[in-house]
Amino acid sequence: MRDKELLDVFGEILMKKVRDEAIEHWEKTTQGELKSPESQRLHKLISSSGQSELFNDLVPKIVDTTLHHLLWTFEQNELIDINVANGDSEHISIKEISDGLAGELYTEDGWISLFSDKNKS
Amino acid sequence: MRDKELLDVFGEILMKKVRDEAIEHWEKTTQGELKSPESQRLHKLISSSGQSELFNDLVPKIVDTTLHHLLWTFEQNELIDINVANGDSEHISIKEISDGLAGELYTEDGWISLFSDKNKS
Repeated sequence: MRDKELLDVFGEILMKKVRDEAIEHWEKTTQGELKSPESQRLHKLISSSGQSELFNDLVPKIVDTTLHHLLWTFEQNELIDINVANGDSEHISIKEISDGLAGELYTEDGWISLFSDKNKS
Repeated sequence: MRDKELLDVFGEILMKKVRDEAIEHWEKTTQGELKSPESQRLHKLISSSGQSELFNDLVPKIVDTTLHHLLWTFEQNELIDINVANGDSEHISIKEISDGLAGELYTEDGWISLFSDKNKS
């Protein structure tokens, strides 16, 4: 697998399994679809504030702030490395492939635009 | 460095550089301390909603949902691995060390409790 494809494998997993799942969790919380006592408590708090719509607009932005700091930290910190399997029994460091991990999130052909199914922030 | 210490090196970086920084970004946004036009626009939206306090309570929960899905994904996905340098020129997989990465976040002696300086969610 080529380097750019490997980077996109990581990006697609991060968007669909982390970004989209986290946003969906809060969509369901806001709508009262989650049945745990804590989720129901939060649903009532958000609902009675009258600001569900604003809240729904802000959740993707907060998730993206978290992902931005995560990627920036991976990039900067020399102790941590992330590897992706390339299909030839090798693990390739995505820090080595990318010019700037945090920069992969945004732009027209960035990970959010390419792979996320949820609101852009 | 022993395995448990390596896991905590990763946990401390994740808490201080990702969780705390993401929460702080939104504290500053809510308080109008960030000067970019987008941050000022969001500050006004949140401020005029009259729900700054609720919003500040929810931000750490949304950050933690994101981190939970991240750690769960790292744990489940066989293509991705995270390594931490152990000081002897070796990189150790944190998936191999932990019994369950997402479970490291919570509990009394979990990463949030041990290493985060921001609100617990």
